[in-house]
Amino acid sequence: MEPKWKSLAAEKRQRLADAIPKEWVPSSIPGPQELDVTAFPKQSRTLSGKEVKITEVTDVNALLKKLAMAEWSAVEVTTAFYKRAIIAHQLTNCLTEVFVETALARAAALDQYLKTNGKVIGPLHGLPISLKDMFNVKGVETTVGYASWVGKYAQEDAVIVEALIECGAIPYVKTSVPQSAMWTETHNLLFGRTLNPYNRSLTSGGSSGGEGALIALKGSVLGVGTDLGGSIRIPAVYNGIYGLKPSYHRLPIHGCVGPLEGHDYMLAAPGPLSSSLSGLKTFMQAVLGTQPWLKDPSVVPMEWRERLYALEGHGRGKQLCFAIMWDDDMVKPHPPLLRALQMTKDVLRAAGHKVIDWQPLHHHDFVRLANSIWRTGSRRDIQSHVAEHGEPLLSGMGLDEDTSPGFFTGDDAKDAHVYELWQMQKKLFNMRKAYLEHWQKTVNQTGTGRPVDAIICPASASVAAPHGQNQYVNYTMVWNTLDYAAAVFPVTKVDAQVDVKSPPHHFHSSIDKVYYEMYDPKVFNGMPVGLQLVGRPLEEEAVLAMTEVVVEALKNAGKARL
Amino acid sequence: MEPKWKSLAAEKRQRLADAIPKEWVPSSIPGPQELDVTAFPKQSRTLSGKEVKITEVTDVNALLKKLAMAEWSAVEVTTAFYKRAIIAHQLTNCLTEVFVETALARAAALDQYLKTNGKVIGPLHGLPISLKDMFNVKGVETTVGYASWVGKYAQEDAVIVEALIECGAIPYVKTSVPQSAMWTETHNLLFGRTLNPYNRSLTSGGSSGGEGALIALKGSVLGVGTDLGGSIRIPAVYNGIYGLKPSYHRLPIHGCVGPLEGHDYMLAAPGPLSSSLSGLKTFMQAVLGTQPWLKDPSVVPMEWRERLYALEGHGRGKQLCFAIMWDDDMVKPHPPLLRALQMTKDVLRAAGHKVIDWQPLHHHDFVRLANSIWRTGSRRDIQSHVAEHGEPLLSGMGLDEDTSPGFFTGDDAKDAHVYELWQMQKKLFNMRKAYLEHWQKTVNQTGTGRPVDAIICPASASVAAPHGQNQYVNYTMVWNTLDYAAAVFPVTKVDAQVDVKSPPHHFHSSIDKVYYEMYDPKVFNGMPVGLQLVGRPLEEEAVLAMTEVVVEALKNAGKARL
Repeated sequence: MEPKWKSLAAEKRQRLADAIPKEWVPSSIPGPQELDVTAFPKQSRTLSGKEVKITEVTDVNALLKKLAMAEWSAVEVTTAFYKRAIIAHQLTNCLTEVFVETALARAAALDQYLKTNGKVIGPLHGLPISLKDMFNVKGVETTVGYASWVGKYAQEDAVIVEALIECGAIPYVKTSVPQSAMWTETHNLLFGRTLNPYNRSLTSGGSSGGEGALIALKGSVLGVGTDLGGSIRIPAVYNGIYGLKPSYHRLPIHGCVGPLEGHDYMLAAPGPLSSSLSGLKTFMQAVLGTQPWLKDPSVVPMEWRERLYALEGHGRGKQLCFAIMWDDDMVKPHPPLLRALQMTKDVLRAAGHKVIDWQPLHHHDFVRLANSIWRTGSRRDIQSHVAEHGEPLLSGMGLDEDTSPGFFTGDDAKDAHVYELWQMQKKLFNMRKAYLEHWQKTVNQTGTGRPVDAIICPASASVAAPHGQNQYVNYTMVWNTLDYAAAVFPVTKVDAQVDVKSPPHHFHSSIDKVYYEMYDPKVFNGMPVGLQLVGRPLEEEAVLAMTEVVVEALKNAGKARL
Repeated sequence: MEPKWKSLAAEKRQRLADAIPKEWVPSSIPGPQELDVTAFPKQSRTLSGKEVKITEVTDVNALLKKLAMAEWSAVEVTTAFYKRAIIAHQLTNCLTEVFVETALARAAALDQYLKTNGKVIGPLHGLPISLKDMFNVKGVETTVGYASWVGKYAQEDAVIVEALIECGAIPYVKTSVPQSAMWTETHNLLFGRTLNPYNRSLTSGGSSGGEGALIALKGSVLGVGTDLGGSIRIPAVYNGIYGLKPSYHRLPIHGCVGPLEGHDYMLAAPGPLSSSLSGLKTFMQAVLGTQPWLKDPSVVPMEWRERLYALEGHGRGKQLCFAIMWDDDMVKPHPPLLRALQMTKDVLRAAGHKVIDWQPLHHHDFVRLANSIWRTGSRRDIQSHVAEHGEPLLSGMGLDEDTSPGFFTGDDAKDAHVYELWQMQKKLFNMRKAYLEHWQKTVNQTGTGRPVDAIICPASASVAAPHGQNQYVNYTMVWNTLDYAAAVFPVTKVDAQVDVKSPPHHFHSSIDKVYYEMYDPKVFNGMPVGLQLVGRPLEEEAVLAMTEVVVEALKNAGKARL
């Protein structure tokens, strides 16, 4: 007899297909041999001219303005993004939940509100927002990549969803994640794999991979992900969009279900992904404006701080000192990333800022310890979610059903005692203190009278890797272990003519060699190249402002191919 | 052969005795039959008239002003408090560490600084500050009530000690705690028991019991404690002084050693105890002014917020709504506490504020779950500290050496698996959300347009209990499990004529009956009666401002016997 999880998965896939209006599905889509599908949605005949126009707006604030002026109705905008999201789904398999009726009813109500009251209901009035499939939406399933969770309809909205709705946003789709959400690619036994729209033989990243692919195809302009070890930042840079990983406790997590619930030392941080940098800021301002700490007791009572955004504490942004980390001493970044760093360094210097080098401090130890901490309970946690229906646990993101024990679920992930966990967490606390001292000491090198204002580094050693090969995540995860706020931004695209393979260097590690060998300019040609800006804990406002400084410098220099 | 811990304890006690200047020890002290020793220090001939005058100043700001004006030198002030602390120690056994030479050298350096520069070095210039014996002071032992820890000299100052020194304060003594610091009385096998100066047959409370007794006897005007389940608030109310328990992560904990290190869900919060309410505020302003988040990565980057102190968000304090919790549905408070609550209610109403009743919500479940969480690893943690030298673990605070298994160390405290801990923490998170909703809903009862501004309740069901009988701590601990900021303040004293025993009520529980039977007006006559004001997480500024409102109302009504 077929195991229960298979029938659950089949049932769910059918239900998803049925929820998609037939008339929104393109009659023909590019075949699997067409790797770059980013140009397709605009050309697809399922979108009207106006719908193309609406969805080609990538600046969230421009869209909000049109909505507030009633130039475009919420129903029009929601329908346009819905239709484009459906196209994106046909191309990359990025969606898990579609609830057209609810979303359009909300849009219609918002249009009515605006008409009646002559003003918007909140700062996100009429904006469709996509959600990673970990956030509960009342009456909708949350499956987190587990076939075993099919049928788990949420009883109430996640607090962050409540906040978005209060602001006037319209949740309209949920997007795919890897099984357990503990991978940085997006593949599961329920929905299958989410592909990168720039090259479908490459990964969309993860765990917010559905968001990455959807936003890159302009099926959404703003989405919500979570980041435990890079899960917002990796899909963002792999898909050429912007993303923000706040510190823990800045945004509400209640009603966001997933791995390691109840763990409290290194948490998944909810945060936005967007096709515009202003989208990240607008999202943060809107959500914090709802005082989420009055609904979720884990949120720090800290409103949006305009003075931090004005870079108070960073010389008001007049002359910043950035530190570039060229290499984390474990895996040397691929040539296009090094070129992006050099380009960024040049334009920042030209803009009058200082740029020094960042020395990584025991990054490998941080990440190894973080993994050990999660592994004290991850196996039992993840197994508990699939045990009932015999669903196998994936051991990697490569093959479709490789189910030998995985990193967080295998025998090595022993079910540890609490005392052992506490010793690890105590050690990490002291390591965090050492890293803080390391940062503070840069006051002697910057010449600004302050320590380094922000660190700039890759978010991954590679651009989007071939499926199953995205195994090195320290460039993002180290900042999770430190709880530093970080944003990512697109810089350029791989140019096979320029980003040639370098001669072998002295390899730091075996994984460094694997990454060296993975690099082939032809494979990655044209892929988005993004970087990461890292600030202090809970300094999201300053991180966004400094990212603007960098992005402006790149744009003004005319060097960026964004 | 004598076990190692006994010789370590004897060695340490001798070392402490030797560190105390002979000429500061009174030639005669009251015998054990004299229970109330609060009047003794002032009369003791070891203090000069000026030293009495200095130490009778209980307002921290008044003292700081005298120091800043060089009216009194730091050496004079430090010497005066040192001498009075030694007297307090003879009476109550409150000290564990004395380092006269270092402290007076620092005082002399501060005097020199003020003379040379004509200005103070920081906001606490010249103020001697006492420290609970969990905070590391470079070159001084930290023993936390373990004989086994004798000889553990700290390599560096705790971050909070660093901050105090930066502000110009002078650490001069460390004060006693119970073995493991996991009790709310103060007794250990290393130094013995700390007594309550108002009645030495009663407990000084704990775990910051040394601080409580010392400050009550004016051997210190400001001290630093920690509060995991009531450890600042219980000794403060039992000794008639003020105390503040901040939320976790507001003040630096690095270099504070003790139980459950590495645990990260319900943490010990460092905070001040003082003979004046202004002392708590001055302490918070000073420590936060040093930006402790730049030295301790666990601290939220949140400066002192004057606008919160001005009660922004609480109608600027014009008409507040307080909610009184008369009973937590587990143990009915003793008559003097109920009288103090009624007195407070009356004066607040007379001052134009609103007062409603607070309904406790599952307080017992919160505390039971918190204990279960700590017990997942407490036994192994505490045992690890004493194993080497065969030191027995106390099972209670009553007998001198009752070493049957205790609550956190017995077989019931099983060494749980991490997955089980995570399930408990997940449950507590949801309970915290339910409590937050419970609070928010009071908006319908207050008439102010806001939910209740603060809760007022006892900090203990009794005043200082007889040694070994202080077993019910839910009145403080429930707020630790919720992470709400809370302050305590003295209200009155037990008056045996007025606070007569009430007839038996319908007992909530067996412990309620035990507490009912414990109450004897004659035993408790004259003991300080304090109450607790509870605010929202990380709202320390508002908690202090609202406590001022209450204390002023009591003072203005002339009803308080403080």
